[in-house]
Amino acid sequence: MNSRARILSAALALFNARGTAQVSTNHIAHAAQVSPGNLYYHFRNKQEIIRTLCEQLFTRTGEMFAPASDQPPTMAEIQGWVRENFVVTWEYAFVFRELPALLRQDALLAATYATVRRRGYEGFRELVGALAAVGLLLPLDEATTTQLADLLWLLSEQWLTALELQGEPASAANMQRGVELMMLLLAPYLCAPPAAPP
Amino acid sequence: MNSRARILSAALALFNARGTAQVSTNHIAHAAQVSPGNLYYHFRNKQEIIRTLCEQLFTRTGEMFAPASDQPPTMAEIQGWVRENFVVTWEYAFVFRELPALLRQDALLAATYATVRRRGYEGFRELVGALAAVGLLLPLDEATTTQLADLLWLLSEQWLTALELQGEPASAANMQRGVELMMLLLAPYLCAPPAAPP
Repeated sequence: MNSRARILSAALALFNARGTAQVSTNHIAHAAQVSPGNLYYHFRNKQEIIRTLCEQLFTRTGEMFAPASDQPPTMAEIQGWVRENFVVTWEYAFVFRELPALLRQDALLAATYATVRRRGYEGFRELVGALAAVGLLLPLDEATTTQLADLLWLLSEQWLTALELQGEPASAANMQRGVELMMLLLAPYLCAPPAAPP
Repeated sequence: MNSRARILSAALALFNARGTAQVSTNHIAHAAQVSPGNLYYHFRNKQEIIRTLCEQLFTRTGEMFAPASDQPPTMAEIQGWVRENFVVTWEYAFVFRELPALLRQDALLAATYATVRRRGYEGFRELVGALAAVGLLLPLDEATTTQLADLLWLLSEQWLTALELQGEPASAANMQRGVELMMLLLAPYLCAPPAAPP
């Protein structure tokens, strides 16, 4: 790893373990085994490191929900994305623990997040449309689509925080609970599967 | 207001405006117009003030979901509770913005929250049972009841945070959106209302 990647990796581990407020650039430089001067060559301040890590997370979760092909995804693929979303979110646990404070203290990051969120809504709308077109989902009106997008966003963003608040580990089993909550949300809108051939 | 109440009220306003990390006991004493010595007569440290405010909130929201009479509540009453829950939660906005960090730094508060949360689940189970008994809700199995409780808890606890992350105000209209999300969650499990008389 080059020194920039080492700094980011060390910062992520420290932020996840202690929270951003308890970690200084000196702590990060020490853990990354670089000099403070080297750290400041790559990043102007701690805020820039936090912002870079948040942007990494947003890029990774944003790409996750974009279908790889022209074909609309299957429900199994969608469940896989949601599971993967929890895994990646947990790698960056400090972000969702601290997001309200992080956005308040960094206008640049807040603007990025607003874009990410808008794209998330649009992506969800397209997905609902594609799933309805292939007969997996019932056709939904605008209002219900927006409401479902709100609930699914809340779930994908806050489920790990809710687990943590309950003192539950971010285990594979608990992430699977989150995937099943998504299925419960979607269940009323799924078309019945075709009957098995006799 | 006596000085203890003034201290709590001033601390709440400052925590909501700036976040707990940016507020010292000196700031609080100054805003409450009491001496630092008077503040320390009532509270050992900032942590104790934070804990007291959290407990106030938990007490108020906990009482909200307990039916006042032996009669099971109507859906209109439940909607009223959810709306009221958002209003009170917003009074204590700093709590849900910072809850993961607050629980990590205070084992006593974490224990209180665990009790509150357990009671919340039990209360929800009783409510679902009571609503099914009067024919408002379909009878639900254990697994679905737990999943719905998870989703409704997520919504009631995190909706205002989700609004804030979107840059949306905690207006009455946006709180009403939260109430409508609850109704969307419950809709598949509501019994059809009796047909109007011909």
